[in-house]
Amino acid sequence: MKIIVIGGTGTIGKAVVKELAQRHTIIVAGHQHGDINIDITNIDSIEKMYQTAGKVDAVVATAGNVHFGPLNEMTPELYSVGLNNKLMGQINLVLVGMNYVNEGGSFTLTSGILNRDPIVYGSSAAMVNGALDGFVKSAAIEMPHNMRINIVSPTVVTEAMDKYAPYFRGFVSVPVDKVALAYSKSVEGKQTGQLYSVT
Amino acid sequence: MKIIVIGGTGTIGKAVVKELAQRHTIIVAGHQHGDINIDITNIDSIEKMYQTAGKVDAVVATAGNVHFGPLNEMTPELYSVGLNNKLMGQINLVLVGMNYVNEGGSFTLTSGILNRDPIVYGSSAAMVNGALDGFVKSAAIEMPHNMRINIVSPTVVTEAMDKYAPYFRGFVSVPVDKVALAYSKSVEGKQTGQLYSVT
Repeated sequence: MKIIVIGGTGTIGKAVVKELAQRHTIIVAGHQHGDINIDITNIDSIEKMYQTAGKVDAVVATAGNVHFGPLNEMTPELYSVGLNNKLMGQINLVLVGMNYVNEGGSFTLTSGILNRDPIVYGSSAAMVNGALDGFVKSAAIEMPHNMRINIVSPTVVTEAMDKYAPYFRGFVSVPVDKVALAYSKSVEGKQTGQLYSVT
Repeated sequence: MKIIVIGGTGTIGKAVVKELAQRHTIIVAGHQHGDINIDITNIDSIEKMYQTAGKVDAVVATAGNVHFGPLNEMTPELYSVGLNNKLMGQINLVLVGMNYVNEGGSFTLTSGILNRDPIVYGSSAAMVNGALDGFVKSAAIEMPHNMRINIVSPTVVTEAMDKYAPYFRGFVSVPVDKVALAYSKSVEGKQTGQLYSVT
């Protein structure tokens, strides 16, 4: 398969590329590094990425930022960071990508555990993750040309605990190689509309 | 208690008002009717509503629109309808409302079944409902002054089936009076961070 991994230069993205590159042709898209540069908040940049990549069999998105901060300091503008980036960035990768994915191809998006197991400062992440989970479950029943769509929702990854441990006390982290397997299941299996919770 | 019901002129809102007015003082806010007019997409209008109402013990939101349409005709602009209205409208009612709700008061928001049980044309509703469910679960652990927050997620209501039946074939509808009880449990009980699924 020919697979494009958006965010393939990040912690999870690199592990996904490593897992899938054993059996497939991978194109890595990243904000600053990778084979193709992309700004997922810009729909023209998304279109350009797909034009450069050409038709693909699978799209994997492991990119997306949200603002973390205390609830009583959050503003509409701070929520819009996550809505424009992690949420609509990934949604637009699907909307535009439907024109560039081959018959029966797949989309695999990324949310995260925080809408199911919240932490302090995480209200925007919880909002965006819930939105992505809901979108994928619903979009799956309307995908054209036998395309599939799933979402991976990992807990905090072990490789990020040096930075994030203070925010995730008591959470059992998961090695990024284990998270990568969920993307493999989505891309290389035939399921659709699934949320793969990796904990 | 003094309770403000935003969207209190709608199908669900009217039932909530009927249930709560038996025991409490109700202020109804609506887009065009009610005691106070409000545009939930406008944060100044939200601020003005609370200033007019004065301090309240509970805020109930039963307002919010999303765009329904085929996935392959959806655009970022069509998704932004639901993000700006049903999602950020309700979130902003909380962000601003935290300054106008008495110690120990509550917020009760409204999502819906479509992120758990999707229908064709419902990808935006699923996105917005998931976002609201995630936000409420997370915000509950950061509410100031012992405030509480819950969300009611009803299936399609019987009173709307004359309009919506073709989109909800096979769904068991629920009478709006039963939906109203979930709001009563949220407002008059002491639970927080709960999703009340009414099916």
